[in-house]
Amino acid sequence: MTSDLYPVNRLAAVREATAAAGLDALLLTPGPDLRYVTGYEALPLERLTCLVVPAAGDAFLMVPRLELAAAEHSPASRLGIEFVPWDETDDPYAHVAKRLGQVATVGLADRMWAMASLRFRDALPAAGQVLAGRVLRGLRIRKSAAEVAALREAGAAIDAVHAQVPDLLRAGRTEREVGRDIADAIIAAGHRTVDFVIVGSGPNGASPHHELSERVIQPGDPVVVDIGGQMPSGYCSDSTRVYSVGEPPPAFAAYYEVLRRAQEAACAAVRPGVTCESVDAAAREVITEAGYGERFIHRTGHGIGLETHEEPYIVAGNTEPLAPGFAFSVEPGIYFPGDHGARIEDIVICTEDGGRRVNDRPRELIVV
Amino acid sequence: MTSDLYPVNRLAAVREATAAAGLDALLLTPGPDLRYVTGYEALPLERLTCLVVPAAGDAFLMVPRLELAAAEHSPASRLGIEFVPWDETDDPYAHVAKRLGQVATVGLADRMWAMASLRFRDALPAAGQVLAGRVLRGLRIRKSAAEVAALREAGAAIDAVHAQVPDLLRAGRTEREVGRDIADAIIAAGHRTVDFVIVGSGPNGASPHHELSERVIQPGDPVVVDIGGQMPSGYCSDSTRVYSVGEPPPAFAAYYEVLRRAQEAACAAVRPGVTCESVDAAAREVITEAGYGERFIHRTGHGIGLETHEEPYIVAGNTEPLAPGFAFSVEPGIYFPGDHGARIEDIVICTEDGGRRVNDRPRELIVV
Repeated sequence: MTSDLYPVNRLAAVREATAAAGLDALLLTPGPDLRYVTGYEALPLERLTCLVVPAAGDAFLMVPRLELAAAEHSPASRLGIEFVPWDETDDPYAHVAKRLGQVATVGLADRMWAMASLRFRDALPAAGQVLAGRVLRGLRIRKSAAEVAALREAGAAIDAVHAQVPDLLRAGRTEREVGRDIADAIIAAGHRTVDFVIVGSGPNGASPHHELSERVIQPGDPVVVDIGGQMPSGYCSDSTRVYSVGEPPPAFAAYYEVLRRAQEAACAAVRPGVTCESVDAAAREVITEAGYGERFIHRTGHGIGLETHEEPYIVAGNTEPLAPGFAFSVEPGIYFPGDHGARIEDIVICTEDGGRRVNDRPRELIVV
Repeated sequence: MTSDLYPVNRLAAVREATAAAGLDALLLTPGPDLRYVTGYEALPLERLTCLVVPAAGDAFLMVPRLELAAAEHSPASRLGIEFVPWDETDDPYAHVAKRLGQVATVGLADRMWAMASLRFRDALPAAGQVLAGRVLRGLRIRKSAAEVAALREAGAAIDAVHAQVPDLLRAGRTEREVGRDIADAIIAAGHRTVDFVIVGSGPNGASPHHELSERVIQPGDPVVVDIGGQMPSGYCSDSTRVYSVGEPPPAFAAYYEVLRRAQEAACAAVRPGVTCESVDAAAREVITEAGYGERFIHRTGHGIGLETHEEPYIVAGNTEPLAPGFAFSVEPGIYFPGDHGARIEDIVICTEDGGRRVNDRPRELIVV
């Protein structure tokens, strides 16, 4: 699978895109940009690991000698590039600068730490720094068939966790107790890491990024469960469902149904050529028309792939048109601080024929 | 505990140090620098969260409105600073720039992502960027009594895991199977996260940053077990012991004893005023005199605290003198690629009276 997911010819495409963008080189430190180009899941360390991709010339990987064996055992070894190990008392930034020679503009991995970007600025004082995202976003935003398959696999894994949630949620348990069981289930379902576990019961459901608390779940509580992790492939899952422990308050049931229709409308709006902001608007219109517009306080979604949050963002003002291979969340929410809240989230892939969800769990309120 | 570990008067000390260093402001995005100053364990997200600490003026926290509740529930709420929430379609960088006005130099969190540092560069085009570490390292490097206590707690937790390793290591199991059990034990011992699990059996022990593989542990294998995680306090553990599954090869036993003496010598060298590089030299001399100098391919250690790797680095060329409160690993190693390797690691605190280890497990080769 690795070879499809991280094809060896991607490096050549990145080099071409670098030249086309007018950049002289990309400098990719550990993180999703490096992984996308090489498949190498390098540790983020204070010692510099950096893939250098000159627009004209051969790419090479600066790597601490300690990490050389790990790099050689990674998919990066298939790329046929030089690995340049450096020793504890070497200056790897100076080494990169010397190899690059005169460069006017370099693209930095979007997540490069300041401790590296400022060292590169000093080692390459004549080089302007821009984000590598300027080059990579156009590639990363259109998922290949193998990437879509990896997102589907991640979606199936998190769906399997949601299928277990009704057995875990009970009045009398704390959010943290339930969250711990969910975290175990995320790993058991095949994820490599647990990235977030939100169990927002009762009033905590009204805080969109609430995580876990010692609150004891009460009868009649609506509970927002928003969970995700990273698969061994590198690709991420993210899905939200709302459960109710017994019958929910009538006011909640009323707006939940509005939310369900809004999420459905936004998913139905997905097709090539439609702008990101109009998908946001599709959800927002339903909610606003029902009188809850002020209660939907965040964007409708975010792209997903090697990062849980990446391009494209489904937000007002983003006029980028969708294209086949775009993958993103559709997750409107309605929140009543102090009382309760709700959010429904699926990951959607834009295809030639419209949006295709990777999550299949029922979207009706699940009374447990 | 939080109030001792993240005292509210630290922010004032940071502001003074910022002024003393000639910086106009610190910009601290999520990560260890922000947590050190505020106690707030903010999520690293594409949406900007940033503590702004002007050298003259009041600090404030830019925070996405979605994260406002989390920030308000964090220890940062004790600091009496303004929280400035921003909405999905605002430009938080422009907002920070407007509030700061004319500034000549800003210090960036050492781990600030390029996607933020380049936005700050554009929003504050007249401001030079340096690392906030220039201000914070002098504070972070000297652990307070509460921080030392947190490191001791982390040390006791990882020692409890090493105490279980003899029961987990058996010929016929794979490194990955053993590693999974160790990861569970790291959490069960009170860590919040598993940061790394290295089980390097036989030849894999010769790769210092090997993690886990499908290799089946063989009778007679030496096995390097280097493990650590982060405690709920934010402070990290890191300890290495070597086990042997049955009697090890005689060549291994010979150099293991050299390594044990080297690690002991380096720990004994720790006291205020001694340079970092001389602690490295103390270990290296023992190994070199025994003829294994070429086999010790890395520095002797790294500082530890809110990060597993931070200042001070115990490495040739680092002439900084130790002072009370410095906390770092002492972990010499000897490696025979293709055969086996060994490393012994304790976290050591420099006190007025010399080094005090936070790890207490036996350092002799443990035959299981």
